Amino acid sequence: MAEEKTRKHIISALVENKVGVLAHIAGMFSARGFNIDSLAVGETEDPELSRMTIVVPGDDATLEQVRKQLSKIINVVSVTDLAPGSYVERDLMMVKVSATPAQRSEISLITDIFRGRIIDVGMKDVIVEISGQESKLEAFVNLIKPYGVKEMSRTGRIAMVRGSAQGKGK
Amino acid sequence: MAEEKTRKHIISALVENKVGVLAHIAGMFSARGFNIDSLAVGETEDPELSRMTIVVPGDDATLEQVRKQLSKIINVVSVTDLAPGSYVERDLMMVKVSATPAQRSEISLITDIFRGRIIDVGMKDVIVEISGQESKLEAFVNLIKPYGVKEMSRTGRIAMVRGSAQGKGK
Repeated sequence: MAEEKTRKHIISALVENKVGVLAHIAGMFSARGFNIDSLAVGETEDPELSRMTIVVPGDDATLEQVRKQLSKIINVVSVTDLAPGSYVERDLMMVKVSATPAQRSEISLITDIFRGRIIDVGMKDVIVEISGQESKLEAFVNLIKPYGVKEMSRTGRIAMVRGSAQGKGK
Repeated sequence: MAEEKTRKHIISALVENKVGVLAHIAGMFSARGFNIDSLAVGETEDPELSRMTIVVPGDDATLEQVRKQLSKIINVVSVTDLAPGSYVERDLMMVKVSATPAQRSEISLITDIFRGRIIDVGMKDVIVEISGQESKLEAFVNLIKPYGVKEMSRTGRIAMVRGSAQGKGK
């Protein structure tokens, strides 16, 4: 299906740390047929709150629905739709790459160029850690693919509004 | 409540990329009262599969239950309980720290020591990106706290079995 107006939206929601909140939110997405590209839930500066970063593909109308439905959930404290260009985003990836001892230096060089780190060396493979925007991670994977990608794990994106883009007080 | 036998378990599950899988899994955790410390869902080397890394606090019996219940879910392809010491783990954090222009160099130094990166500079704050094990991220936050933490976002942990710890083929 060609979806011209579809783009990826990043929604950042502060939610209470309670059993069932994730189930409630995931259930809402599922019941309404909203897709999720990635989801990351982690700690925040407040031990009673978690931040959920959800990447949602869809047009603006879909996004507005998602935002409204999320806001209705009682344990959701706030919902922000991050406007393009106003935020920095990062995704973390670990890749286990096949590597003979002779290939390690080549992989190490590519890793350096991408400001990644080799965090484990085995007899037949290395594990690379790399963080950045999606396009950077994809470029890295494409370069490393010929060696053989054994395993890949990504955290999903987190995002934060730039201080330099803020007009308001907090 | 003192919970002596409780520790944090990392469960890595490969799941099919289908609407409703997350809701199903989150619903199972919620219905059975299992807590989740963090959850990250991201892409893998196979476009039809996502990897879900779930950090679950609890004793060994709880973990065994979680593992069994997860395996029963039809869209869950595999479930691995990562044994302590056999894996590398990483968590990615962004922190927006209050910083006057004069304080920037101090914060930059701490960031360098922790091998983090300053990814945005505003008039009143900077955003630091840092990845590592949980203890490293916590040490960083403690050092940076006196400047004022405005916002913090974490991806939740991902983990991978070390190549150097593998006895088996794949």
